[in-house]
Amino acid sequence: MQLKKRKIKSGNRSRFAYGGLDRVIHERARLSVLTSLITHAKGLAFGELKEFCALTDGNLNRHLLVLEDAKLVSVAKHHDSGRPQTICRITPLGRRRYLDYLEVLEQVIVDGAAAQEGVAGTHRPASN
Amino acid sequence: MQLKKRKIKSGNRSRFAYGGLDRVIHERARLSVLTSLITHAKGLAFGELKEFCALTDGNLNRHLLVLEDAKLVSVAKHHDSGRPQTICRITPLGRRRYLDYLEVLEQVIVDGAAAQEGVAGTHRPASN
Repeated sequence: MQLKKRKIKSGNRSRFAYGGLDRVIHERARLSVLTSLITHAKGLAFGELKEFCALTDGNLNRHLLVLEDAKLVSVAKHHDSGRPQTICRITPLGRRRYLDYLEVLEQVIVDGAAAQEGVAGTHRPASN
Repeated sequence: MQLKKRKIKSGNRSRFAYGGLDRVIHERARLSVLTSLITHAKGLAFGELKEFCALTDGNLNRHLLVLEDAKLVSVAKHHDSGRPQTICRITPLGRRRYLDYLEVLEQVIVDGAAAQEGVAGTHRPASN
């Protein structure tokens, strides 16, 4: 029991910390925005993005500012037949960072699913 | 183009909102705590949980309170050979809610991975 306990403490230290779950991306609304944009490489109009994410104008604007500050998203004004249009796009950096994030998310699912299948769950708590 | 736009607006409204990403579970530290606990069905001692999640005593306590309030986790004091021990466990409700959450997380990965494979990304932005 002592050996098993030591193994868990050293070999698996911070095993479930998921440091790669970048808080800028992980926040639900921003994850929603980034997933919408990564699946639409040519960009999305503000109004479409708002609907995809089920966000209000104010909330979408607030989260776009955070993502722009982090250089993960670019927001540009265009004119389409004289009508002003705001187009949001994921940047190459945003794409890389989002895909890195996705890898960590996959690990969470692998870990969580292992419990569902009963692979884990046999470890007895040690004293604290 | 107009038809395509309508289809997107009606058929895929809130397509990427991920309403099932419960904020109590989605917060990174709490996701870490719950994944640690669901993979250890017999519970974890406070000290072990702290190491698995790479959290300080204060932060772990704070997040455990949120999870206890939501009835997703139970925290109990035991005596192990006279030594007091705090054991944290995921509740049956916590297990169900975590697994529901995991399903939504899987959808995020499916959506994000589709972009990586170039399945999506051809939609042109419509005016807002």
